[in-house]
Amino acid sequence: MFQSLPQTTRREILSKFLEEDIGRGDITTLAIVSPDQQAVGYFLAKAPLVLAGIDLAIEVLTLMDEGLTVESCHRDGDCLNEGEQVALVRGQARALLTGERVATNLLQQLSGIATLTKRFVDAVRGTKARIVDTRKTTPGLRVFEKYAVRVGGGVNHRFGLDDAILIKDNHIKIAGGIRTAIEAAGSAEARAHRLEIEVATLEELQEALRHDVDTILLDNMKPDMVRQAVALVRAGRRGTKILVEASGGITLGNVHEFAEAGVDWVSIGALTHSAPAVDMSFKIQPA
Amino acid sequence: MFQSLPQTTRREILSKFLEEDIGRGDITTLAIVSPDQQAVGYFLAKAPLVLAGIDLAIEVLTLMDEGLTVESCHRDGDCLNEGEQVALVRGQARALLTGERVATNLLQQLSGIATLTKRFVDAVRGTKARIVDTRKTTPGLRVFEKYAVRVGGGVNHRFGLDDAILIKDNHIKIAGGIRTAIEAAGSAEARAHRLEIEVATLEELQEALRHDVDTILLDNMKPDMVRQAVALVRAGRRGTKILVEASGGITLGNVHEFAEAGVDWVSIGALTHSAPAVDMSFKIQPA
Amino acid sequence: MFQSLPQTTRREILSKFLEEDIGRGDITTLAIVSPDQQAVGYFLAKAPLVLAGIDLAIEVLTLMDEGLTVESCHRDGDCLNEGEQVALVRGQARALLTGERVATNLLQQLSGIATLTKRFVDAVRGTKARIVDTRKTTPGLRVFEKYAVRVGGGVNHRFGLDDAILIKDNHIKIAGGIRTAIEAAGSAEARAHRLEIEVATLEELQEALRHDVDTILLDNMKPDMVRQAVALVRAGRRGTKILVEASGGITLGNVHEFAEAGVDWVSIGALTHSAPAVDMSFKIQPA
Amino acid sequence: MFQSLPQTTRREILSKFLEEDIGRGDITTLAIVSPDQQAVGYFLAKAPLVLAGIDLAIEVLTLMDEGLTVESCHRDGDCLNEGEQVALVRGQARALLTGERVATNLLQQLSGIATLTKRFVDAVRGTKARIVDTRKTTPGLRVFEKYAVRVGGGVNHRFGLDDAILIKDNHIKIAGGIRTAIEAAGSAEARAHRLEIEVATLEELQEALRHDVDTILLDNMKPDMVRQAVALVRAGRRGTKILVEASGGITLGNVHEFAEAGVDWVSIGALTHSAPAVDMSFKIQPA
Amino acid sequence: MFQSLPQTTRREILSKFLEEDIGRGDITTLAIVSPDQQAVGYFLAKAPLVLAGIDLAIEVLTLMDEGLTVESCHRDGDCLNEGEQVALVRGQARALLTGERVATNLLQQLSGIATLTKRFVDAVRGTKARIVDTRKTTPGLRVFEKYAVRVGGGVNHRFGLDDAILIKDNHIKIAGGIRTAIEAAGSAEARAHRLEIEVATLEELQEALRHDVDTILLDNMKPDMVRQAVALVRAGRRGTKILVEASGGITLGNVHEFAEAGVDWVSIGALTHSAPAVDMSFKIQPA
Amino acid sequence: MFQSLPQTTRREILSKFLEEDIGRGDITTLAIVSPDQQAVGYFLAKAPLVLAGIDLAIEVLTLMDEGLTVESCHRDGDCLNEGEQVALVRGQARALLTGERVATNLLQQLSGIATLTKRFVDAVRGTKARIVDTRKTTPGLRVFEKYAVRVGGGVNHRFGLDDAILIKDNHIKIAGGIRTAIEAAGSAEARAHRLEIEVATLEELQEALRHDVDTILLDNMKPDMVRQAVALVRAGRRGTKILVEASGGITLGNVHEFAEAGVDWVSIGALTHSAPAVDMSFKIQPA
Repeated sequence: MFQSLPQTTRREILSKFLEEDIGRGDITTLAIVSPDQQAVGYFLAKAPLVLAGIDLAIEVLTLMDEGLTVESCHRDGDCLNEGEQVALVRGQARALLTGERVATNLLQQLSGIATLTKRFVDAVRGTKARIVDTRKTTPGLRVFEKYAVRVGGGVNHRFGLDDAILIKDNHIKIAGGIRTAIEAAGSAEARAHRLEIEVATLEELQEALRHDVDTILLDNMKPDMVRQAVALVRAGRRGTKILVEASGGITLGNVHEFAEAGVDWVSIGALTHSAPAVDMSFKIQPA
Repeated sequence: MFQSLPQTTRREILSKFLEEDIGRGDITTLAIVSPDQQAVGYFLAKAPLVLAGIDLAIEVLTLMDEGLTVESCHRDGDCLNEGEQVALVRGQARALLTGERVATNLLQQLSGIATLTKRFVDAVRGTKARIVDTRKTTPGLRVFEKYAVRVGGGVNHRFGLDDAILIKDNHIKIAGGIRTAIEAAGSAEARAHRLEIEVATLEELQEALRHDVDTILLDNMKPDMVRQAVALVRAGRRGTKILVEASGGITLGNVHEFAEAGVDWVSIGALTHSAPAVDMSFKIQPA
Repeated sequence: MFQSLPQTTRREILSKFLEEDIGRGDITTLAIVSPDQQAVGYFLAKAPLVLAGIDLAIEVLTLMDEGLTVESCHRDGDCLNEGEQVALVRGQARALLTGERVATNLLQQLSGIATLTKRFVDAVRGTKARIVDTRKTTPGLRVFEKYAVRVGGGVNHRFGLDDAILIKDNHIKIAGGIRTAIEAAGSAEARAHRLEIEVATLEELQEALRHDVDTILLDNMKPDMVRQAVALVRAGRRGTKILVEASGGITLGNVHEFAEAGVDWVSIGALTHSAPAVDMSFKIQPA
Repeated sequence: MFQSLPQTTRREILSKFLEEDIGRGDITTLAIVSPDQQAVGYFLAKAPLVLAGIDLAIEVLTLMDEGLTVESCHRDGDCLNEGEQVALVRGQARALLTGERVATNLLQQLSGIATLTKRFVDAVRGTKARIVDTRKTTPGLRVFEKYAVRVGGGVNHRFGLDDAILIKDNHIKIAGGIRTAIEAAGSAEARAHRLEIEVATLEELQEALRHDVDTILLDNMKPDMVRQAVALVRAGRRGTKILVEASGGITLGNVHEFAEAGVDWVSIGALTHSAPAVDMSFKIQPA
Repeated sequence: MFQSLPQTTRREILSKFLEEDIGRGDITTLAIVSPDQQAVGYFLAKAPLVLAGIDLAIEVLTLMDEGLTVESCHRDGDCLNEGEQVALVRGQARALLTGERVATNLLQQLSGIATLTKRFVDAVRGTKARIVDTRKTTPGLRVFEKYAVRVGGGVNHRFGLDDAILIKDNHIKIAGGIRTAIEAAGSAEARAHRLEIEVATLEELQEALRHDVDTILLDNMKPDMVRQAVALVRAGRRGTKILVEASGGITLGNVHEFAEAGVDWVSIGALTHSAPAVDMSFKIQPA
Repeated sequence: MFQSLPQTTRREILSKFLEEDIGRGDITTLAIVSPDQQAVGYFLAKAPLVLAGIDLAIEVLTLMDEGLTVESCHRDGDCLNEGEQVALVRGQARALLTGERVATNLLQQLSGIATLTKRFVDAVRGTKARIVDTRKTTPGLRVFEKYAVRVGGGVNHRFGLDDAILIKDNHIKIAGGIRTAIEAAGSAEARAHRLEIEVATLEELQEALRHDVDTILLDNMKPDMVRQAVALVRAGRRGTKILVEASGGITLGNVHEFAEAGVDWVSIGALTHSAPAVDMSFKIQPA
């Protein structure tokens, strides 16, 4: 949801990315290209993809040349075929040459995430399950990667440790049990956020259902057991009000099976930690 | 080569990663776990991997608890099997619970890169070719990702735009030709860095060889043409003094073929932009 | 919930506060006091107060002298009388003299918030209502001020714009109505956070209750209307599952009346934006 | 005196305030409001006040929408009645909704300071005394709060520890006496700044007057003793050249008495540490 | 007066200096030296000098190796001869090799300033004039350079634009005259800082003396005219209470003449903007 | 090569310089000059100089007044005589008065470096030697100072520790000899950067020449020995391919002698660590 960030904040983040690549200066471009030389450039899709991050990529180039003009052919969420051109920018040749790698890196990675997310979303079409991300994101890029998940049709889980309570196995082990942990987390009136708890067995699930929880995370269960777990939840007192999330061991091959087991959410770390970058490049010509 | 960074710098980078995840506080852990509770934890390899980043992961946890003690079972570069335990840390339970996601994210991604690099390195064993990275890294993580490439046995190409001259197709198009570009880049005496030039055809290669270059980048050539190109370079005046690099379209399936074609370097963007995270988790128990 | 922040982060924030006061150096202390001079100091309560921020205050002093030793007489949440001494620190006289103003400023303001919060909490004792803070905090200090509210016995509402959905009058006006706004915000399955809506009349409340909301904010209603509103909510389909919050025009004089009207939350901007600092000072002697 | 800050600096400070509130994104506004929706908004005075910070509040909103247009009805220093509208802004509805809380928080707090300062200034009208602030400001906001004091008609004391020498009781205790402390601080020729010394009794005052000081701070004296102290100073060798400042225990109720006792400065910590925020809100409508 | 800075602040500044030099890593040292290798090193004076900055230089090295041990042979202010050794440090060879350039650069430049300052101070010995610095410092290093001036025996003029009022020719031109400018700057009671005014002729001086100023800056006057100016000031109503400063065209050759003309301050931009670095190097051996 | 830096980065650096000087505000200018007052200003050369940094100086002023208009009379690299005017700017009088010192400080120092570099470049005219800088730069200003060296006609050596391998005497001592050190640094194929080694005697040179090095640094040799060293290198197997650099004890008086000895590079620390600032001032008038 990086769109809400104040401009200064966004520019600082993107400038740090540029600084990392530029170091003390683009010695190739400075030596070869005159400051007055103008150029046009565009991003080229070299494989089918769901576009994500085009505004960021352009903002990166604009940080190198404030006078850059842009003709956007596509918007985030568009499905592109190999060979399609994504945007047309005009500006200083030096700026385009120096900024293109960072812009392309960002665009490739975010589009990679959106593309993979969409494949999962398509795989559960027809069920009521939603594809959900995790906190297994690249350090420093969470707000961008979670945005790309949404572009691909996914739902964002917690942004971090402060916007929902999620009691995981490690917490339960430290707390000494499910009941102790949930009670310590406080009643619904004593907090502003949802409470979710992770369970690994049906027994743990039954224990969890005795308490006031908003979401149940079924950890590493097979689809069959997931189905039983969903039935247990729906049969409970707050039945349809509790969200059920499945997580662990989910692939493009088996995600539909999980979805059909009746869960509300299927969460997949690979959306952000293992999406391969899509192949894109940036082409420049003198203007 | 992040090892050279001053401690303050490294801590600031890792703290930013923690801040991104923690936001205004780990509301789950603060509610459930007492500040006095101690715990032990370890990273668990859930698949075979080449370890990279264990010191960073531990430094992340140490930022949450200065008094953390560590027993390191393995060092970066070690090959681990599924089920192996990577380090044993003891400290405040709160610190371990709050810091573990960032530590694990970092460790998973860097080990993923080292693991993939090693697979490429193994694939060219027996040839003189080296596996080399690119600038297609994750924004903000270059220094760590390039380190992981070395852990996996790879060689680092340029760190950024300031530590070598690399004249690419875009530069040549803007400059109006190979000769103009190389001449503008200056003689060996007028600069402190190596000069590399990208060529896509044998004609371009011949043009490039007329000038004083240190490295030739063969872009997107098939192995056959790469072989011819290498022959042309070696037959030239400065023959063995020029490094030859192949790039583009290189996979685990065909990398050996490229290596056998006689190049010095095979550079592969996927090492950093598409290495899947290896599966690891962090286990905690009360101490 | 600043306790979760990594040490480096907390130190950077506190160092900025010190830099603001120190500027280019404490010219008085440097001129008058030798670097070897040791001293003891303590914070003195000059009025009754609920202590909040003592660890932060000590961390500020420690930033000036790493070797500082501390004997803490009191902990956050303690009720102190005029004349009580809060902590005893020993260290370089220069460090104590230069750091004391920032340490005291922080301690005075946070204790002021905890003290005021406790007065509100005491005023609703015997009802089930909780005293809740708002986003009307001092820019730059939210995480500390919300912590002080908890020390005083209050509950934290949203930390910011990203951890719960709160549809306010301005959103409704822009969206064109309550229904449109709630529907746009998405179903419970499509988001990870609670949804709250502000209503100013009973008609608006009835409209809101037709939808799937977690919390109702009664804005600027008199206690009488609050009572009717609570009755309407409880009579509804999801009756006890919906939290009811009253806000606007609430003072120490009338808060009990609001609490008795049956709301779950009474939220009060003044806790953070208008709590007067409690009177404290820092006393130093040669050691 | 924040007006002298370079634009980049001011924007960074204000962006940090926005980041604190926005976190990873304004999930309410992003869900409900389209990016194309335009709106108009204004700040509303809900109580009589002295306006301070309107340019900052508008700069905050501009950070969210560079294209914002503003019609300013009032300027800092204006006295407003309840119900008056402070500025009229037009821009993206999202930007106004996301930025309004930070803008209003800042405006409320600074106007609160200016309003309280003016009450003190009015209370000493007819005397030659000036109302002066202290270093008891909110950490991180000093430059803004000291500006608000000036808007309210007050005079700024030291900005920090580096722009004047002020020898307080703690310094004297460490130095071992008034004489030692003043001598260590150096002669007027050996420094670029004024020298002030705090005294708590007439004996201390007499000791202080034996040395070359610019200002005398009468600490926690009653008005009667202040009058005697002023007489002692004026009778001295440098009589009218020495500024006399009274501090401690001064309220709106007794400030006139202090002023009539003949001091040049009355300094009041409450101006900045305990001024209640004035009641203001921000109203938005579709444009 | 950098000694007052909190440790975190000082470390951040020094780390930035190290980052500037280290970039993405010290590729020479990492390749050649094992992480376990220990070494001893020392700074060597290669010319006579006044030492300044040794604590900073050691702090730089400590940032590279927390475990560094130091034996300090000399302290800031000591006069060293060619061939003298300044400190003896023991620690990781890598840390010493990577950090030495930044440490030495800082030490050389600050010692250069202290050395030049001392030559000026020696040149005015026997007069009452003091050698004073200016704001003509190296961007980013003011607090360190002004410290070095003090080490050399000089007095610090303003740290910046906020700690004293100095009305210069440009201000007078904009204000429309000396009188207008001084009056706008406010009476002594309305400000916390000294007021100084620059004059270039005796007429301007006479005009300035009609007002309540603390210091007179004689700009670019010859020693003869300076003598007349001093006489005019001393003959005035506030005679000895006004400081007289001479500035412009002052060299080691003529500074004594200016001092003898009776001024209190001789201010010299060259102390900081043109002091040549003193020749020092850092020597390392295996330990 | 600061020209490649993204605008945001450059502005942040320059803003920090302004903040250092402005502190909490330019109390002189704010008191004396109305915000509406416009002015014109220009930089004045008060001695002959090679201009460097004029775009930076103007960017500093623009940070104080976004609406500043500029008429540039000269560009970096121009040789100016005493009395020449460098640029004409129009904007708010307050902005010009507050920003001029930082702008001038930067311009004076960079022009000082360019001016000194040009004197050295002129001194070796007629030889093939180039004047080269070192890492003996002012902490925080390297990228600007190295730019100024280029403006003066010099060549940039390493930017830092990461863009070339330079094995110095300290490395050799730690490594235990020239051969060990060079071998550890790796073959040309295993790295992306040039390798240079420092030698102090002809014996060391002969040892170094047995290995695959790109550059030889002759440390502190007299011109005669330099001549013999060059002969040895040229007689070697890779003769003309190896760059020869002389360093140590080189002055304007003897640099021609070194150049005539046949080296490719003469490197001089004084270019950056001891170049005196050229005398410039900034003149302002009401507009």
